[in-house]
Amino acid sequence: MPTDVDIAQAHELEPITEIARRAGLPEDSVVPYGMTKAKIDLTRLDPSRPDGRLVLVTGMSPTPAGEGKSTVMIGLADALSQLGHKPMVAIREPSQGPVMGIKGGAAGGGYAQVVPMEDINLHFTGDFHALTAANNTLAALIDNHIHQGNALGIDPRRVTWQRCLDVNDRALRNVVTGLGGKAHGVPRETGFTITAASEMMAILGLARSLEDLRVRLGRITVGFTYDDRPVTAADLNAEGALTALLIDALNPNLVQTLGGVPALVHTGPFANIAHGCNSLLATRVARKYSDIVLTEAGFGSDLGAEKFFDIKARFGDLDVAGAVVVATIRSLKYNGGAAKDELTVENPQALRDGLVNLQRHVENIRKFGVTPVVAVNLFGSDTPDEREILHHWAKTHDVALAEAEVWAKGGEGAHELAELVLDNLTKGKTSQLYDPADGTENSIATIATEIYGAGRVEYSPQALKDLKVLQDNGWDNLPVCISKTQYSFSDEPTALGAPSGHTLHVRQLLPRTGAGFVVALTGDVMTMPGLPKKPAAEKISVAGNGKISGLF
Amino acid sequence: MPTDVDIAQAHELEPITEIARRAGLPEDSVVPYGMTKAKIDLTRLDPSRPDGRLVLVTGMSPTPAGEGKSTVMIGLADALSQLGHKPMVAIREPSQGPVMGIKGGAAGGGYAQVVPMEDINLHFTGDFHALTAANNTLAALIDNHIHQGNALGIDPRRVTWQRCLDVNDRALRNVVTGLGGKAHGVPRETGFTITAASEMMAILGLARSLEDLRVRLGRITVGFTYDDRPVTAADLNAEGALTALLIDALNPNLVQTLGGVPALVHTGPFANIAHGCNSLLATRVARKYSDIVLTEAGFGSDLGAEKFFDIKARFGDLDVAGAVVVATIRSLKYNGGAAKDELTVENPQALRDGLVNLQRHVENIRKFGVTPVVAVNLFGSDTPDEREILHHWAKTHDVALAEAEVWAKGGEGAHELAELVLDNLTKGKTSQLYDPADGTENSIATIATEIYGAGRVEYSPQALKDLKVLQDNGWDNLPVCISKTQYSFSDEPTALGAPSGHTLHVRQLLPRTGAGFVVALTGDVMTMPGLPKKPAAEKISVAGNGKISGLF
Repeated sequence: MPTDVDIAQAHELEPITEIARRAGLPEDSVVPYGMTKAKIDLTRLDPSRPDGRLVLVTGMSPTPAGEGKSTVMIGLADALSQLGHKPMVAIREPSQGPVMGIKGGAAGGGYAQVVPMEDINLHFTGDFHALTAANNTLAALIDNHIHQGNALGIDPRRVTWQRCLDVNDRALRNVVTGLGGKAHGVPRETGFTITAASEMMAILGLARSLEDLRVRLGRITVGFTYDDRPVTAADLNAEGALTALLIDALNPNLVQTLGGVPALVHTGPFANIAHGCNSLLATRVARKYSDIVLTEAGFGSDLGAEKFFDIKARFGDLDVAGAVVVATIRSLKYNGGAAKDELTVENPQALRDGLVNLQRHVENIRKFGVTPVVAVNLFGSDTPDEREILHHWAKTHDVALAEAEVWAKGGEGAHELAELVLDNLTKGKTSQLYDPADGTENSIATIATEIYGAGRVEYSPQALKDLKVLQDNGWDNLPVCISKTQYSFSDEPTALGAPSGHTLHVRQLLPRTGAGFVVALTGDVMTMPGLPKKPAAEKISVAGNGKISGLF
Repeated sequence: MPTDVDIAQAHELEPITEIARRAGLPEDSVVPYGMTKAKIDLTRLDPSRPDGRLVLVTGMSPTPAGEGKSTVMIGLADALSQLGHKPMVAIREPSQGPVMGIKGGAAGGGYAQVVPMEDINLHFTGDFHALTAANNTLAALIDNHIHQGNALGIDPRRVTWQRCLDVNDRALRNVVTGLGGKAHGVPRETGFTITAASEMMAILGLARSLEDLRVRLGRITVGFTYDDRPVTAADLNAEGALTALLIDALNPNLVQTLGGVPALVHTGPFANIAHGCNSLLATRVARKYSDIVLTEAGFGSDLGAEKFFDIKARFGDLDVAGAVVVATIRSLKYNGGAAKDELTVENPQALRDGLVNLQRHVENIRKFGVTPVVAVNLFGSDTPDEREILHHWAKTHDVALAEAEVWAKGGEGAHELAELVLDNLTKGKTSQLYDPADGTENSIATIATEIYGAGRVEYSPQALKDLKVLQDNGWDNLPVCISKTQYSFSDEPTALGAPSGHTLHVRQLLPRTGAGFVVALTGDVMTMPGLPKKPAAEKISVAGNGKISGLF
């Protein structure tokens, strides 16, 4: 079997203008970035078109290798197209940081990919870079304000706005800036997050329009004054410049699947440390120009999916008609106690034990008023007996389940799954889990008990102080974005399966008044990843003709 | 008179494909970024075409407001086009940092601009961002190597590779990274430069091909081991990944002047703190697809021009057929002692006194074997008597001089200048000032005495140590890129006119083995600018239709 990059490079792409034409996108809305990528100019679209139905793709709790969620989604889209439907895909843009680390691309794999994969994984149309620039321009304006007399009285010890970079760089987590004497700024402790975890990313992902973007940017809280008043980006007159830096980035990016299905790939917040979905605008545009949209929410029902319903769907008035939970036999065995390096060995008992994890994810999705379909992403090591156990479980638990073999077969490997998804679509209203008006504590407690199966929530002394700040400033009625490990329903990565009655530890609560939510940091989750001992970057090379190899 | 951005936004641009077609660029070499920008795919060009003649545009020592060098060059290009020639412009890309600070755009002004000006000044085609990403990926790989066991034995106190950002942010000049304990890297002192000053920028600007880019990236010195051996990017296996991050950035960007002349705008090193010219590849491509190329070297003959001849032309085997020295009456008065806020007041004496500055720049250019033409960029406050003094000086000193009025009149205001430039073209070989093989000290001494008029060079104790490192490693035969204030021939910004016999203070010598030169820091020049008390960013705003205002 050739590698992902081999398959992607061997594929003959259609001109992006042709992909756009088939989707019905107006010709003057297509802003080309080369021949195979384009931005869609939102001002040229027809808002009166009817909406296609929206299907959310999520997963069970993953192994460290990932379960191929994007791959299944892309294969499913190609299958729907082959069956005569007019699908569109809306997914996140990959972050460059992990590309240099260990993680594979976020553009699918094998014969179920979004292409051009090298471009999508490196720079793409520059959205991450624009966000990094806007983020760090705001940081420079803050430090400059303090340096130039500090008219607003910003307390340098309480600047909450961090710089960001789209790299995996642990050395930037905790830094001291402004050293070197009087001419070089005011020294203070601060840090960098990865761009995917920045509030800028969340803002771009949740903005409903250019004007809404501007308002949200102005509303960002950058820190506090010596007398405890919050300081916003608007107080620094920064929102105009920040908006100018993000005008192009607000337009969704159009590419294609190997099956020629249009794919909008736009914004890329991680689902563990951020809100985990592609942009609201991309999802909206996709619905206008397709009859069925497959959209992604990262990791499991506890992370991306919960945030999709409670944050993105809430802000965007999105109705969801269906959901797919991607599972693998190896991840079921992993969640049932099998060792990480023995997941290709047949192990019926571990598989049976791990089904509690999938069961919890299925139940979680049902709580939002949607009927999930389980997609089993097949691997070569899966045995007939193991597959039979899974089918039996589905039948006895009244769960719709189909196998998919998209990595090796592309869309052809997902026809049965496609039919099952279509059979399970509803027209119901999407529900949310909690009412933010009931306060931050209630929101967190509801997610913790209903979705994570936790028994209680424990706040660190810092989190209790943060809670007071939220309440004092009227921010405790915002939805909550919980930053949590993807490996467990709890905040402890080694607690696999379906832990119950555990304690969720809230370390810190961060107001994200621009994005419009509160980030709750739990466990030891960090917002700036590091590189491994052998970074993937070391294997990347470029041939004389410009062809990249070693990229996945 | 409308503002620059008003003029630019009112102009109806030709499709970039049409600009490319008229220039004779192959259709498949044009990679569109929207309708009015494109990258030129170098692999699709015809290397057998004859070369157009190359004219270098430089200036006298500027006032803090700048003398309109880019503006004159662009107007001159439009004039040449109006006179039936087939010119092309090759200039630098603007840095976003100063756009948010005080500096105007680097895309000309008034009716002599390169458009689309908002795009060119904000993000453009992403080259600066790609450089920032590559630069900081290398930094992350270095710190990760040290953190993961430090097999190479890199001394954390001697990592010379700095991070960079394309912002004006003085608080990043001196930082401590890697704080927070064992899991978060190894603490060390370091800093950020602005991207324009990074070695990455120099490398991209001087690379002759994709393969040469890869070789240069691998050759970067990132620091030293505990036992004093230099460590390169290749030692970290980083050059493949860095090349992959810069593949697109290596292709020059095509835009247009208001007069429809093709303009290649590519790479943007500042001329005071870096090497100051657009990319070698852009200059080469421009020569292949025009009969006359106007190219820029930032600031005066002491900075951009000297570096153009001694670094870029040397590496690129470029022959220069002509040169333009842009002067203004206000800058002549400034250099003759008039106060900064009285430059619009008639002052014949100050003007006469300031001519020594222009004279020195003219003589400097002649030392490289080229006959310069002085272009006087006219301002409304210039009086007939002042203009007459200048014409008289030119006649008596055998200097070719023409006035230009391009800001208000575009190309129409530079016809006389255009004729004069054409009359003064030569076919001679370009000469360099020094032979790097004679050692770093000789190179610096030659530039200091021949170009700056200095009497001697003084090395700081640190610079003497650095010199030893250069000699020990065989790096003292590289050309020298002197980082110096643009306001004076000396390293003291207030020494205006044409100081002689002064001492040049070399603070530090930095090996840039990837770029292939040694940076000599003089005076107090800093490689990361700060923002002013009232940053330009505060005035930028975006209308509901996406139109940007307040940008210059």
